Amino acid sequence: MPLAMQAADLYSFLEREFPQVGHMKLEIAELDEQSIRLRLPVSEQHLRPGGTISGPTLVWLADLSFYLLIMGRLGPVAAAVTTNLNINFMRKPEPADLLGEGRLMKLGRALAVGDFTIRSEGSEEPVAHATLTYSLPRSKD
Amino acid sequence: MPLAMQAADLYSFLEREFPQVGHMKLEIAELDEQSIRLRLPVSEQHLRPGGTISGPTLVWLADLSFYLLIMGRLGPVAAAVTTNLNINFMRKPEPADLLGEGRLMKLGRALAVGDFTIRSEGSEEPVAHATLTYSLPRSKD
Amino acid sequence: MPLAMQAADLYSFLEREFPQVGHMKLEIAELDEQSIRLRLPVSEQHLRPGGTISGPTLVWLADLSFYLLIMGRLGPVAAAVTTNLNINFMRKPEPADLLGEGRLMKLGRALAVGDFTIRSEGSEEPVAHATLTYSLPRSKD
Amino acid sequence: MPLAMQAADLYSFLEREFPQVGHMKLEIAELDEQSIRLRLPVSEQHLRPGGTISGPTLVWLADLSFYLLIMGRLGPVAAAVTTNLNINFMRKPEPADLLGEGRLMKLGRALAVGDFTIRSEGSEEPVAHATLTYSLPRSKD
Repeated sequence: MPLAMQAADLYSFLEREFPQVGHMKLEIAELDEQSIRLRLPVSEQHLRPGGTISGPTLVWLADLSFYLLIMGRLGPVAAAVTTNLNINFMRKPEPADLLGEGRLMKLGRALAVGDFTIRSEGSEEPVAHATLTYSLPRSKD
Repeated sequence: MPLAMQAADLYSFLEREFPQVGHMKLEIAELDEQSIRLRLPVSEQHLRPGGTISGPTLVWLADLSFYLLIMGRLGPVAAAVTTNLNINFMRKPEPADLLGEGRLMKLGRALAVGDFTIRSEGSEEPVAHATLTYSLPRSKD
Repeated sequence: MPLAMQAADLYSFLEREFPQVGHMKLEIAELDEQSIRLRLPVSEQHLRPGGTISGPTLVWLADLSFYLLIMGRLGPVAAAVTTNLNINFMRKPEPADLLGEGRLMKLGRALAVGDFTIRSEGSEEPVAHATLTYSLPRSKD
Repeated sequence: MPLAMQAADLYSFLEREFPQVGHMKLEIAELDEQSIRLRLPVSEQHLRPGGTISGPTLVWLADLSFYLLIMGRLGPVAAAVTTNLNINFMRKPEPADLLGEGRLMKLGRALAVGDFTIRSEGSEEPVAHATLTYSLPRSKD
């Protein structure tokens, strides 16, 4: 099954719909039907005193990345919304780029379910792990 | 049991540690040993296209508010960190002030557990509901 | 809005569909449009060595009770299924009857969301707290 | 780092502490420092009307398996208890053996965090996915 949107299409979508995200230089390293891998260059705006990355930044990264993965399959489904997010924060992130890896576990008619793991570059141990559910708009079939 | 910090102490803490939060005019309406009630005046910076409030803003509100509730009991425990957050997004928030209500369900030696419900002012139906776990620093006993 | 099923109807449903549950003497103490309160008499079969109640029993109680609350509103929706359950275990239950209280936070067309708090009789402090999402069958409208 | 307990040790532990589990013929297919793979032969007692496997059976499998994975690392830590479990039910299980795969994401001093994926034999698509947190007893250091 071909992808509905490739990485380049997703970038265009982000720049159009979320211009502030374009500035964050989020990079899509790999995208296929079941998974996505991204890099978030760490900049001043994400850092907390002490040089670590804030929890809301990690939540934002997981949520946006999983949305990109869904759009890779379904195209620009503007009406898809997060209904559940569960996140475990496991380690203090290093002041290094963040690497994220998302996995689509279910793409049903009404719900998409997946998980997302975040690491600091240069470390094998996860910083955070999220599971997410998106509610999908009903197709008009 | 008296509170370790009153609302005024928490404001001072926020202004000192999170100066950007002070600007958001977050108001603590009530604080006691088991619960906290807050109001977040909705301003431009929280709004998404369409006039709604972003998911990360709701997550940030739940997380910070539960931290304030813990500090009301324990004082300024800088080393307390969120370990788990589970949030259900149930309705699109109105472009109105957000009212939040937190509840402390467990304050153990190692973990604090609670939940947080968010409504739009003027509506009874919850916009989002989160459960949170904080890991507490060990006392030196 | 009148209830679609009263407590007596729910008992009949349970006895017919889950005959093994009828034997557990689960009691519905209160049922209205938004909430349910139940008592589970503790018997030998729920106890672990040490006199406590097993985690799976608590999960089962939360899940079944929330299903009863949904049926009180919608009638016998056999196709409703749990899609997400998040539970925090906070204290070891006493070897006493369990009291549970469920709350319906959203009853949409596709999803129902609520939470459920479990206490041991005679104690104010919660043993466990769950949030649940049920997927609802589509009505044929 | 060698394992504190091998699969054979875990079987002995289960037979001694949970004699009822021994009867379920749960098989540990693989165990290493970070992961565990198991098979649960499906028998009558797990089946619901319609030939599917009950949600509580899936929760029980995830919870017990993650406990075995922790014991592989730490030995028979009787005081380890589940503090959080989040599970997404994604598909109706087939009336086939269940295959489970657990992953340890963090083994800290106070908390262990991991996830667990369940499939029906002969299918690639997950039936359920859980994330779990165990609270660990404090070592006497």
